[in-house]
Amino acid sequence: MIVSYAELAGTLERALAALGLEPDRAPRCAQLIADSTRDGVPSHGLNLFPRVASMIRRGAIDPRARAIRVAGRGALERWDGRRGVGALNAFDAMQAAIAGARASGIACVALGNTNHWMRGGSYGWQAADAGAIALCWTNTLPNLPPWGAASPRIGNNPLVVAVPRARGHVVLDMAMSQFSYGALASYRARGERLPVAGGFDRDGRLTDDPAAIEASRRPLPIGFWKGSGLAIVLDIIAAALAGGRATHEIGADPEQETGLSQVFIAIDPASLEGAAIDGVADAVVASVQARYPGERTLAARRQHLQQGIEVDDEAWTIARRCASA
Amino acid sequence: MIVSYAELAGTLERALAALGLEPDRAPRCAQLIADSTRDGVPSHGLNLFPRVASMIRRGAIDPRARAIRVAGRGALERWDGRRGVGALNAFDAMQAAIAGARASGIACVALGNTNHWMRGGSYGWQAADAGAIALCWTNTLPNLPPWGAASPRIGNNPLVVAVPRARGHVVLDMAMSQFSYGALASYRARGERLPVAGGFDRDGRLTDDPAAIEASRRPLPIGFWKGSGLAIVLDIIAAALAGGRATHEIGADPEQETGLSQVFIAIDPASLEGAAIDGVADAVVASVQARYPGERTLAARRQHLQQGIEVDDEAWTIARRCASA
Repeated sequence: MIVSYAELAGTLERALAALGLEPDRAPRCAQLIADSTRDGVPSHGLNLFPRVASMIRRGAIDPRARAIRVAGRGALERWDGRRGVGALNAFDAMQAAIAGARASGIACVALGNTNHWMRGGSYGWQAADAGAIALCWTNTLPNLPPWGAASPRIGNNPLVVAVPRARGHVVLDMAMSQFSYGALASYRARGERLPVAGGFDRDGRLTDDPAAIEASRRPLPIGFWKGSGLAIVLDIIAAALAGGRATHEIGADPEQETGLSQVFIAIDPASLEGAAIDGVADAVVASVQARYPGERTLAARRQHLQQGIEVDDEAWTIARRCASA
Repeated sequence: MIVSYAELAGTLERALAALGLEPDRAPRCAQLIADSTRDGVPSHGLNLFPRVASMIRRGAIDPRARAIRVAGRGALERWDGRRGVGALNAFDAMQAAIAGARASGIACVALGNTNHWMRGGSYGWQAADAGAIALCWTNTLPNLPPWGAASPRIGNNPLVVAVPRARGHVVLDMAMSQFSYGALASYRARGERLPVAGGFDRDGRLTDDPAAIEASRRPLPIGFWKGSGLAIVLDIIAAALAGGRATHEIGADPEQETGLSQVFIAIDPASLEGAAIDGVADAVVASVQARYPGERTLAARRQHLQQGIEVDDEAWTIARRCASA
């Protein structure tokens, strides 16, 4: 099924309103979900909507809760997400970090007690659209074995780093696993091997067979010991600054994945006279002569705005049913 | 040759003084180099000393220059490293970031026009010793092919993330290459294969043969496309905020590697009442049941303080000759 962006966003807005999001909040949440889908990341857009709906219905997500500032000094703040809608909490936290960066050059909001932020890249694009540099990350439920262990005890803790650029922002959005379970399933469904080793099989051998990794539950951290270490240290920082949960305190069931901790750092390059970030970014992108982070996002966005967005039938049916309830 | 920490640091101090570092600066620089060697990273400690000495003698490093603040707003500052000693510039920049974080919760110093910072982890340990969380990174000369290209057009841009912890700081110090050229040479000299694929051979096939990667000059970024993207975006941020050079503007000869750009972000967790970082870090480290970042550093430190430090003969000879000049 192919739908237009307007149809997707409109349907999601009605669905979210029906789920209890207030009139000033449903449009923003719908936009975040529709944008991720439009940008070629349906796994963290529309396809997550059914889980959000189910978690709202079960009370795991409070559709009316708004994140509030609970502590802080200067440019560092701690917010309580009050188990509200993860994407809206993250958006609000990044807006506050951007405002703080305008005042102080750099600012940080640590957000605890929140829910899945859906596509992390959204908050990088948000900052870059506002002219800010951003670093943000979230912890997750334990879904990745640390290097040297066989069972999932760390999160894949996505890290987002964003730079504003007039000709197309540079936005890196990377989980600490080499391939997500969603990606493994896609390769398997297409009958393909992974382009590089993505995990261990049940016998502890590195493999590029997606089904073998799904069976062992041993996907690889990026860079082996390196990504494992980065996931660990980002988890500690998020939980400590947010006063929230670390990965080991989060349940292993995705439907119960709540109480996450996140960090949003924004830097305002305009604070520094002569910080010619646009020229620097253009020159680096040109020098690399290879794909830069964010390039594929913009290509997908253009294509989907012109040709419509192919949506997952099941998720779309659930969203439409919810919208007309 | 095995030397004590005191002998190593003392010799380096005399050598650096002989090279022109001022009396209030040589001890700190000697300590940074000796600490890295003591901590099991001689490649970025004593073994880099001959290059530093040679660059000072050729005028590429100014041993008396001190980094100065040239712009800023609030908690964001830009410093000019004035082509001074890279390790001292980095130390001073991190000290300023820590002081800024004490005042504002979070602070950032972007340092341009500087030189190789030697072991990046030093500045993570420095921050953690002061009770601060730190994120810092540097760009480098082009030494790594971006994903999708065969020639080195990005830097391996080490990223350091540090968390203070009474029972041993958690400090990640990771370059964006899976293996450094130094590591490749060590594996080759021992006649070993790499534990995982570390690059491409001349025919473009992934290989765990260190000599084949040295020959092709195609080491792998960590996480393939992911580490490649992270190196690119960190380079842009460092060069733009520092008003300095990006990787593509830095010469490919290590002896000419100067004019680097670096970012130092410090966060003071004590700014937030109840930020129980020690307990959070202890619990995460315990939960992982695998090695945490910094663990091996502390083990090497203990061993070397007890048993002395095995030093590279050539580097040690150069340092001693320099010290007695």
